[in-house]
Amino acid sequence: MINKIRNENPVIHCITNHVVSNFQANGLLAIGASPIMGEAQEEVEELVAISRALSLNIGTLNKDTFNSMMLAGKRANKEKIPVILDPVGAGATAFRKEAVQKILTEIDVSVLRCNAGELAAIGGVEWASKGVDAGEGNIDLDKLAKRVAKEYSLVVAVTGKTDIVADGSRVEKITGGDRMMSSVTGMGCLLSAVTAAFTAVSPEDPTAAAIEALKFYGAAGEQAAATSEGPGSFRDTFLDVLFGMEIDDDGFDFEKGEGVDVLWQRSNRY
Amino acid sequence: MINKIRNENPVIHCITNHVVSNFQANGLLAIGASPIMGEAQEEVEELVAISRALSLNIGTLNKDTFNSMMLAGKRANKEKIPVILDPVGAGATAFRKEAVQKILTEIDVSVLRCNAGELAAIGGVEWASKGVDAGEGNIDLDKLAKRVAKEYSLVVAVTGKTDIVADGSRVEKITGGDRMMSSVTGMGCLLSAVTAAFTAVSPEDPTAAAIEALKFYGAAGEQAAATSEGPGSFRDTFLDVLFGMEIDDDGFDFEKGEGVDVLWQRSNRY
Amino acid sequence: MINKIRNENPVIHCITNHVVSNFQANGLLAIGASPIMGEAQEEVEELVAISRALSLNIGTLNKDTFNSMMLAGKRANKEKIPVILDPVGAGATAFRKEAVQKILTEIDVSVLRCNAGELAAIGGVEWASKGVDAGEGNIDLDKLAKRVAKEYSLVVAVTGKTDIVADGSRVEKITGGDRMMSSVTGMGCLLSAVTAAFTAVSPEDPTAAAIEALKFYGAAGEQAAATSEGPGSFRDTFLDVLFGMEIDDDGFDFEKGEGVDVLWQRSNRY
Repeated sequence: MINKIRNENPVIHCITNHVVSNFQANGLLAIGASPIMGEAQEEVEELVAISRALSLNIGTLNKDTFNSMMLAGKRANKEKIPVILDPVGAGATAFRKEAVQKILTEIDVSVLRCNAGELAAIGGVEWASKGVDAGEGNIDLDKLAKRVAKEYSLVVAVTGKTDIVADGSRVEKITGGDRMMSSVTGMGCLLSAVTAAFTAVSPEDPTAAAIEALKFYGAAGEQAAATSEGPGSFRDTFLDVLFGMEIDDDGFDFEKGEGVDVLWQRSNRY
Repeated sequence: MINKIRNENPVIHCITNHVVSNFQANGLLAIGASPIMGEAQEEVEELVAISRALSLNIGTLNKDTFNSMMLAGKRANKEKIPVILDPVGAGATAFRKEAVQKILTEIDVSVLRCNAGELAAIGGVEWASKGVDAGEGNIDLDKLAKRVAKEYSLVVAVTGKTDIVADGSRVEKITGGDRMMSSVTGMGCLLSAVTAAFTAVSPEDPTAAAIEALKFYGAAGEQAAATSEGPGSFRDTFLDVLFGMEIDDDGFDFEKGEGVDVLWQRSNRY
Repeated sequence: MINKIRNENPVIHCITNHVVSNFQANGLLAIGASPIMGEAQEEVEELVAISRALSLNIGTLNKDTFNSMMLAGKRANKEKIPVILDPVGAGATAFRKEAVQKILTEIDVSVLRCNAGELAAIGGVEWASKGVDAGEGNIDLDKLAKRVAKEYSLVVAVTGKTDIVADGSRVEKITGGDRMMSSVTGMGCLLSAVTAAFTAVSPEDPTAAAIEALKFYGAAGEQAAATSEGPGSFRDTFLDVLFGMEIDDDGFDFEKGEGVDVLWQRSNRY
């Protein structure tokens, strides 16, 4: 699918928070997608109409952006393009809980990309969440993911030490990634946008798209961590890796600097 | 002009989008300018009054920031400081088209810094635009740039494979830059702010300022790309290069790390 | 205190400007704190209730975020968690001056983290400020810092060539840091958030917390500058250094890459 993204440069409309908007746009460009970030109520429907997926993120939600998300989500459903929701800190405040509830009930969401604490909040399960971080708890995540997936007819992609992708019928576990990924802000948010890009080029199977996106992302995280000195260098190396990551029969592969050669062979973006 | 910017540290008032505001501020600091980013209607006029150029960017425009831009633009005209407009995705939605139209008719803009798709939208020409990207088309850009420049009495600076700077009487073409520049978000937006800084220290000749800004920027892009592994490392290297770029009789020149020595010789910014 | 931050991962609620929000969140993660950035009036009180410090920054203030700051600040006082204020460009506009005045009179602020120009504006002293930069002047900063600290019963932490920390009874000077720190946007803003994290784990002595934060930050700046080519690479290296900085009997110390090993020994954040 990454090759399809690079060939087709799908436009991904992101209504997102200002903490990660730059990183999300850069990450989407790095994998070959074409981000568009408008959020005014006056224009979001038109933006959705020229996009191939809609990525919603409630990280710094306010009344205005919430209204824009509802308008954009409904238009996305009409246009039959996939909607990916990142319910950042869903359990932290009543405002977020209600916003997520309203989005999930009034809009057909394709993929819910979240962490364990957020999933627990959405599923109505006790969880020692900590701010917008995942937190800790002793719940059966597999079951919960499957239940939430069934309830809202969507794919649940929960990330953590082990990632879980669940739809109404199956549950897949994905390992990989690196601890460093939790020391950079927006790593989860960008993953949601990347999942939107994978789903954009594979709308007929959002489960497969989410699984592929998580594997790709985890592999990129591992490779970036291997040559990083800390979160600052990791952040940039990660964008370099996203940009240059190749997929062959053995899985994902990346060689430093090779991405530059790869780029020279692509052409339609300049 | 870059030396003038470094000596005078002109304050550049940016009303811009939240995707690129950080990159824009860092880019302006790197060339020696002094960014100020306030956008509340209550204060933009006062901010304009202490600035030497106003840089407007509609990337994540909403009703509030649009009103602020109109207030700031009118005050800038009164103060006789140059206004630079970046009409991000001008053709993508009616909201953007109308906003750009209103800015161009009610405010004296000095330089319109855009891509081909945006220029086509402003000039009322057909163009296969794609989201906020430039898109493709078969129009005579030289003619269009000259016509738009004449119509609004401003300088048009269109960037792409070949850059074009046009005012009512002449058209200049500029080559340079690197493909990598299209894989980093905000490269065009920052160029607009950099153009604002060049125009700030050369308000009597905005055409020359735009040409110099584009040459400088393209040279920096080439030098940064030469030592980058992908868009993540390019982004930082580009800021390093902006910071250390020297101009001598042979044109722009940069040696890695030399900028640090240059800085030690400047002094008034700490 | 840095070790306490790394062990306790205090949640720091930031209501801040969109230019630096990403850098601030990354900086807080790098030192081991847990940032939360929500700013809607509907939720800020709840966010404060789960946080251990509140960091306010008026860099791109508007009416809405100002109201959120007032609500959050009052709740923070009720919850007895420290409030840190960064009055970005306090002297630049009437809107900022009044906002800062209102915050300082209606909310118990623990630490006012600012530059000389901002302190002058708050203290009602003449100062040749330049946009949001510190500017220049010939005032007795020690006296002014002490007077403002007394007037509002708070700790004043002014940064510049020499940093000053003052409360009603004493004044401490801190040297260190690097000129490069003034060429990256948000370095002061992040310092305010870092001070919030230090104060969060030492609320009984905000003076000591501010002193320690400034020493830590200055040492990190020096070490990052030593291996940077310019502001782009400095910015990332600085995050790496914040992440890996150790404190021993001889003061702060950092070895490139060692931070990664340190992380492997921590564990609760992934």
